[in-house]
Amino acid sequence: MSRSDSLSVLGLDADDTLWESEARFHEVEARFRDLMAPWSDEEATDAALLATERKNIARHGYGVKGFVLSMIVTAVHLSDGDINANQIGDIVAWGHELLDHPIELLDGVADTVDALSRTHRLLVITKGDLNDQMTKVARSGLANRFWRVEVVAEKDEATYASVLDRLGIQPSDFVMVGNSIRSDVLPVLGIGGRAVHVPHTTTWILEEPDPKAVAAVRFPVLDRLADLPALLADWSVA
Amino acid sequence: MSRSDSLSVLGLDADDTLWESEARFHEVEARFRDLMAPWSDEEATDAALLATERKNIARHGYGVKGFVLSMIVTAVHLSDGDINANQIGDIVAWGHELLDHPIELLDGVADTVDALSRTHRLLVITKGDLNDQMTKVARSGLANRFWRVEVVAEKDEATYASVLDRLGIQPSDFVMVGNSIRSDVLPVLGIGGRAVHVPHTTTWILEEPDPKAVAAVRFPVLDRLADLPALLADWSVA
Repeated sequence: MSRSDSLSVLGLDADDTLWESEARFHEVEARFRDLMAPWSDEEATDAALLATERKNIARHGYGVKGFVLSMIVTAVHLSDGDINANQIGDIVAWGHELLDHPIELLDGVADTVDALSRTHRLLVITKGDLNDQMTKVARSGLANRFWRVEVVAEKDEATYASVLDRLGIQPSDFVMVGNSIRSDVLPVLGIGGRAVHVPHTTTWILEEPDPKAVAAVRFPVLDRLADLPALLADWSVA
Repeated sequence: MSRSDSLSVLGLDADDTLWESEARFHEVEARFRDLMAPWSDEEATDAALLATERKNIARHGYGVKGFVLSMIVTAVHLSDGDINANQIGDIVAWGHELLDHPIELLDGVADTVDALSRTHRLLVITKGDLNDQMTKVARSGLANRFWRVEVVAEKDEATYASVLDRLGIQPSDFVMVGNSIRSDVLPVLGIGGRAVHVPHTTTWILEEPDPKAVAAVRFPVLDRLADLPALLADWSVA
């Protein structure tokens, strides 16, 4: 057993917990509203895109490629086939921009992850396109701080239970940290683990949690990831 | 240690090893040639699509969604922006058809996987869209025969080494079975494992192996997965 095997495991979400993601999507959504302006006002465009994403989430999964396909389907529909091919080509190019975008670590993340990697085995659990998520980890400069990286199709109780079981981790020994109450907090509490919420600036509508489920539980909320080491130190003393 | 923990691990590829996949892509490629006919002959269409796929494989990864995005980019380019939006909508719909297509197990697979699951811990290792691959496993009717399912971004030596290391499996104890010499055979032999080739009807150009690397190694080739149990029984006696 190496030294690191004795450290407890800390779960970390990636997008909007370690690095910026949602803001890049919002920029593209703004361009999409402009592109659709000849056929649809902003509110109708947003509603149509969301409806398409919701309808396709089970077959597209999460991530950039599904988002691009949903924008294309929405554009053809809203324009009644009138939008031209080069404009659709632009939508694909926006997706490529998202996939190629440099990683912007959130404030204090580099130092905090560095410190946490000395006290915990860091298990990144993220959903989205497998290829995209793995290249983001590689480009983040943090890869060698992580014990494991798990890209999953959905972050629900069954998935967390399966990941922890596979790695031989008891839920009661596990802490998950992330910006999504729906994906990072509720399912982990649901299987008997602990969870810490570090909100980001915005929450995608499909990530909004059931308010009743939120009201039924208690969990710490931190302003920034940099506040996590102090909280974990408190917990290990308590 | 449960009984199953003592069984050795057998790696199985999924697409075109357990179920039909490539043929569905070929059907869509044929429709794409027809769609492009006003602007491009069949050979030029195939060449342009392949060039787009090759250029984008690192950012798209493998799978249906990247294939759809590559068809769209190719269609806009070949038609010089002339193709209409509804036709591009059709391309997306073909992708949805691929994602929703019922699983067609290859001949003899159901019985063979059933038999193998009693003698081995079955580890499916597949690349492609995470969401798509996981739902295919779920819809295959075989999920409860598999010990683990790993969806990976690329099937190279580093990936196999990492998967086996993570699961505590020695490469010398590991056998991989699949239809792709490039993805299922060469990298496993390269890290000191054993591999069995079960060719399917066709091989995608981006899956064609380096002929020199193939000439340098020896591995068994089986006509069908149903021939595998006999081969493995021979090996365990030898």
